[in-house]
Amino acid sequence: MESKKRTEISSLGEFALIDKLTESVQLKNSSSKKGVGDDAAVIAYEDNLQTLVTTDLLLEGIHFDLMYVPLKHLGYKSAIVNFSDIYAMNGIPKQITVSLGVSKRFSVEDLEEFYTGLNLACEEHGVDIVGGDTSASLTGFSISITCLGNAPADKIVYRSGAKEQDLICVSGDLGAAYMGLQLLEREKRVFAGEKDFTPDFSGKEYLLERQLKPQARKDIIELLKQNNIQPTSMIDISDGLSSELLHICSQSNVGCRVYEEHIPIDYQTAVMAEEFNMNLVTAALNGGEDYELLFTVPLSVHEQVSGLKEIKIIGYITNASLGANLIARDGGEIELKAQGWNSLQSENN
Amino acid sequence: MESKKRTEISSLGEFALIDKLTESVQLKNSSSKKGVGDDAAVIAYEDNLQTLVTTDLLLEGIHFDLMYVPLKHLGYKSAIVNFSDIYAMNGIPKQITVSLGVSKRFSVEDLEEFYTGLNLACEEHGVDIVGGDTSASLTGFSISITCLGNAPADKIVYRSGAKEQDLICVSGDLGAAYMGLQLLEREKRVFAGEKDFTPDFSGKEYLLERQLKPQARKDIIELLKQNNIQPTSMIDISDGLSSELLHICSQSNVGCRVYEEHIPIDYQTAVMAEEFNMNLVTAALNGGEDYELLFTVPLSVHEQVSGLKEIKIIGYITNASLGANLIARDGGEIELKAQGWNSLQSENN
Repeated sequence: MESKKRTEISSLGEFALIDKLTESVQLKNSSSKKGVGDDAAVIAYEDNLQTLVTTDLLLEGIHFDLMYVPLKHLGYKSAIVNFSDIYAMNGIPKQITVSLGVSKRFSVEDLEEFYTGLNLACEEHGVDIVGGDTSASLTGFSISITCLGNAPADKIVYRSGAKEQDLICVSGDLGAAYMGLQLLEREKRVFAGEKDFTPDFSGKEYLLERQLKPQARKDIIELLKQNNIQPTSMIDISDGLSSELLHICSQSNVGCRVYEEHIPIDYQTAVMAEEFNMNLVTAALNGGEDYELLFTVPLSVHEQVSGLKEIKIIGYITNASLGANLIARDGGEIELKAQGWNSLQSENN
Repeated sequence: MESKKRTEISSLGEFALIDKLTESVQLKNSSSKKGVGDDAAVIAYEDNLQTLVTTDLLLEGIHFDLMYVPLKHLGYKSAIVNFSDIYAMNGIPKQITVSLGVSKRFSVEDLEEFYTGLNLACEEHGVDIVGGDTSASLTGFSISITCLGNAPADKIVYRSGAKEQDLICVSGDLGAAYMGLQLLEREKRVFAGEKDFTPDFSGKEYLLERQLKPQARKDIIELLKQNNIQPTSMIDISDGLSSELLHICSQSNVGCRVYEEHIPIDYQTAVMAEEFNMNLVTAALNGGEDYELLFTVPLSVHEQVSGLKEIKIIGYITNASLGANLIARDGGEIELKAQGWNSLQSENN
């Protein structure tokens, strides 16, 4: 990075910087009436649609480590995690605002890298950048993104709609992003002090990609729609399966039984867990940042859902009195606990 | 602060903390369909209304100094600056999301203080807190607030609508917030090292209030509406009058002439400028954080506007070729420059 051109942010000033970063932005959605450049953006969805709003604050050293996260990937991921929240409501993301706090360590070129990733994610998901600001920070890099999306009122899926006997489904596979993080952390320690941090990750590409370039499952939302399947409840898996299952159970006032043997886990995740001498199920249950969708559907669509690639049925919803339990491979029951990724607690342990 | 009860944030965890901070929140607006507690908030405005979105990132040490800004005031102001952006579009703020990054220095009680101010501002302006998150930060306090509001499409006022001959108007008075900041900074230096920071501010209360508890001019928006006056362009004064005038001129492709003698300045601001040996007009032109409204109206409503208390006509719009100028008391013309408050540059000087 040091050999590249470096333009100091202070040489541009705030307004020129925002112009530079957003000059290539073309508004794609007819609902984006006014983007960057006024006191507020203006948005007009069609009359039958409700507005969805989600926001995420990402702070350097807490949510990401620039030692091994390239700024382009960070930009991409920052947008994706917000889109994922909108998909988890069964909605379509349409607009984002982007606020950045940057210390003097960062150059204009660094921010352009970040925006390259951000723009790529927005291209892929048909989302417009409609506002935001860029300001100095005393230390590090702070990112705040707010995403707006929409959905017809009767199609929005909340966490609270799960019913007894509903099937519990999950998209993709779990635990890989967590394993990718462990891998990056290990290599960071190994290469500590060395200038060029370029370890060999061959055979582990999937884990890295899951950590550095996660996907928001627009395809799953479309797949369900094509098959006329309306989930009864849904959430995206950002803090780990256990934690998200407990959210659905508490908000729907139900219990659940999920089966260890049905939890989808990729081969590379399993190999890595063994290498790290880690419990694979723990990684899948409590490892965060998978950004897969966890949802429930009525028992009546069992056959249809079973036929869908990329979706696995991992258990079913029970009466609240039965609690939330994992059925292990040996038949034993283990109560689910929210040991998910928690940035507030991780600070202290 | 040290003698008060102190609950460590880590003792609660993220979800319990958000519950605690938002438990008193009652959704006031019928458009707030779902607030805190799902992947996204759900909002439904009436069909004839467009959605306005604005966002602000406030970072400790850059945008505020907790040495003299009480957390309650900070919470209040953080919300107000966003409401001000919505009013500047001639809209009504309706919902906010609140993301906080907090270091270990802060306790649960500190965050409750912050929320007390935030809730007060929301009460006064009829706004609902519908989402957000709270996370750890390595250093300091980071605040990201996004505000949604609405307005009928034909009532939204952009920066780009000013026409030649339009009158330039400003609400309230200017420069006081900047003087309040200078005062606080001076006292901070004087009291450096002393434990109890309680200087005597008698006779300067207005300046402090303007800095610590600014108002968003909902009343002006209502006043204009009652009088059937639709501004042709509008912006809120957050970076100083000069900077905002230049935004309107460049986006409307016009020039302007404003008269020094008509710029509204409070008596306390003038006294303080003298005490600091500062140029009063410079303070009014370039001092930020007034959160007054700057707007243009057609010449035809001159008489009506002249009769409105709280609104001053300070000049008029000209052809772009004439530039943006201040007419000094001695009749001299001074070209306006954007020397406004700029957090990106202030880092370096």
